[in-house]
Amino acid sequence: MSNHSEASAAPVAPVEAFEPPYYVSVFTAVRTQDQSGYRETSARVEDLVKDVPGFLGMDHAQTPGGLSITVGYFRDADALTQWRRDAEHRAAQQRGQAEWYQSYTLHVAKVERSHGFTRPDDAEGRV
Amino acid sequence: MSNHSEASAAPVAPVEAFEPPYYVSVFTAVRTQDQSGYRETSARVEDLVKDVPGFLGMDHAQTPGGLSITVGYFRDADALTQWRRDAEHRAAQQRGQAEWYQSYTLHVAKVERSHGFTRPDDAEGRV
Repeated sequence: MSNHSEASAAPVAPVEAFEPPYYVSVFTAVRTQDQSGYRETSARVEDLVKDVPGFLGMDHAQTPGGLSITVGYFRDADALTQWRRDAEHRAAQQRGQAEWYQSYTLHVAKVERSHGFTRPDDAEGRV
Repeated sequence: MSNHSEASAAPVAPVEAFEPPYYVSVFTAVRTQDQSGYRETSARVEDLVKDVPGFLGMDHAQTPGGLSITVGYFRDADALTQWRRDAEHRAAQQRGQAEWYQSYTLHVAKVERSHGFTRPDDAEGRV
């Protein structure tokens, strides 16, 4: 729709609102100074989760030098359970605790309502 | 505990994990180019929500030129209802649609499980 997204690796738009119920996992983190290997593992994990049946999408934002928030959207609890048990995902989590995360919090929640908004002039005015 | 936080306006740490059930509101947004007035209104809204009985905390992250994610934590649905009906909050939302947001999605969800992690060497290694 817009050509602006060609400038970046991914189009900048939040994941849409789905029909409830569905699940969100909210992962808030502060990273350590040593981030060696993080980028490769993170890209691999993002690829892996796309193969989970019931995975709906993922949003991520990172304030430079500050908080990182990743939100995953899943159709149901089974999808989340499968993702939680994925061996490669678990290994990445363990390495994250050992090396990449200063602190984090995970909240898993069932969505009860949701809505979205897009400006009528969607092709203009993007940051 | 750590003196590092004195360098910034707020200590950089995610909001803690609470005892479920509680509620999260996940607000993901892409902002427009015109952000005049946003900072003042945002600060005011952050002050207002602190007065809502049952408000537990808020996390925010913003990728420069990219996605903005704000997560609010509330003890119960009543707290969220009160916040949703706040007149000043509603006026800010309307101005957001008119001026500040290119697109956004809001997901309101009931937390079923949560946990947190903090490195044993919490005073060191912060970004």
